[in-house]
Amino acid sequence: MAILDAAKVQFAEYGYHGATIRAIAAAAGVDPALVHHFYGTKEHLFAAAMELPVTPSEAITAALSRREPGSSLGTHMVRSALALWESAGARSSLQAMLRSALTSEQAAATLRDFMTEGILRPLASVAGGATPDRASFRASLIATQMLGLAVGRYVLRFGPVAQASPDELAAAIGPVIDHYLTSDIS
Amino acid sequence: MAILDAAKVQFAEYGYHGATIRAIAAAAGVDPALVHHFYGTKEHLFAAAMELPVTPSEAITAALSRREPGSSLGTHMVRSALALWESAGARSSLQAMLRSALTSEQAAATLRDFMTEGILRPLASVAGGATPDRASFRASLIATQMLGLAVGRYVLRFGPVAQASPDELAAAIGPVIDHYLTSDIS
Repeated sequence: MAILDAAKVQFAEYGYHGATIRAIAAAAGVDPALVHHFYGTKEHLFAAAMELPVTPSEAITAALSRREPGSSLGTHMVRSALALWESAGARSSLQAMLRSALTSEQAAATLRDFMTEGILRPLASVAGGATPDRASFRASLIATQMLGLAVGRYVLRFGPVAQASPDELAAAIGPVIDHYLTSDIS
Repeated sequence: MAILDAAKVQFAEYGYHGATIRAIAAAAGVDPALVHHFYGTKEHLFAAAMELPVTPSEAITAALSRREPGSSLGTHMVRSALALWESAGARSSLQAMLRSALTSEQAAATLRDFMTEGILRPLASVAGGATPDRASFRASLIATQMLGLAVGRYVLRFGPVAQASPDELAAAIGPVIDHYLTSDIS
């Protein structure tokens, strides 16, 4: 518990890039090896401090490896994200993350850096696999659609998007993700 | 000023549907006709209380009437929304709206009702004009993409989406809005 408290303080004060396992361990009064032993990488430690159920990069990698035959990559990504969110208390995690980003510019910067490393980078490697141009722009476009889906469905809960089944949403939004992954976007 | 303060209290307490011009006028100690004279409809009064630069339904209607020849409806909608947001301090309005929705379930419900009346309904009439099936589902899908774009670009400001020009974003996201307006989405 002391480690997570120290991590929260360090991430809030120095941002995702500035915080180090070494400084967090020192603040908690433990050896850095102990922090590594319990939490693994900095991404894992941040996910634990933010009370995320999984690290985004692992969720993306795992989802891609379980792709069903006949399902487009975009449809599969939407379905996987919804399965994770439905089961994992997405609403409270999302609210906590958005609330911290709205509270201060530093918190927004921390979340932005974490999303860049944990979400946009693995997405960009997928996007770059299909068509190598503008992979990070493609990844951030995907992030806008998925972010809007999550906020619209779980936080604001507006109408049909909150009531639709995961399959309906995957069928409607999957082609959009495929468009961002592979179409000519300029 | 007393009218707007009374409006904020009534909207927070009774929601968008529950609050009435009559009750707001009574709370402010003025005649309802005065409220109508200064603020027009309930939508206008809500927009003023939330410090929105325009009412969403008027912005949507105005944008649609100024559509350039050769530009798809989706591309035009993205370009119009960006033009409005860039000029109108979108960041602070968005932050205020999201913060209130995160603060309480009642505030989220009020915002949801307002968005349904002010954004989803005019969008649904556009979507229904192209293909009449599932207009409100189509409208709410468009809302997820535009909400995610706004939050990603102005609040979290992640990478390429924050740096891209409005034209680049309109070119990339316009076809997505067209897809939600007209494609087979089931």
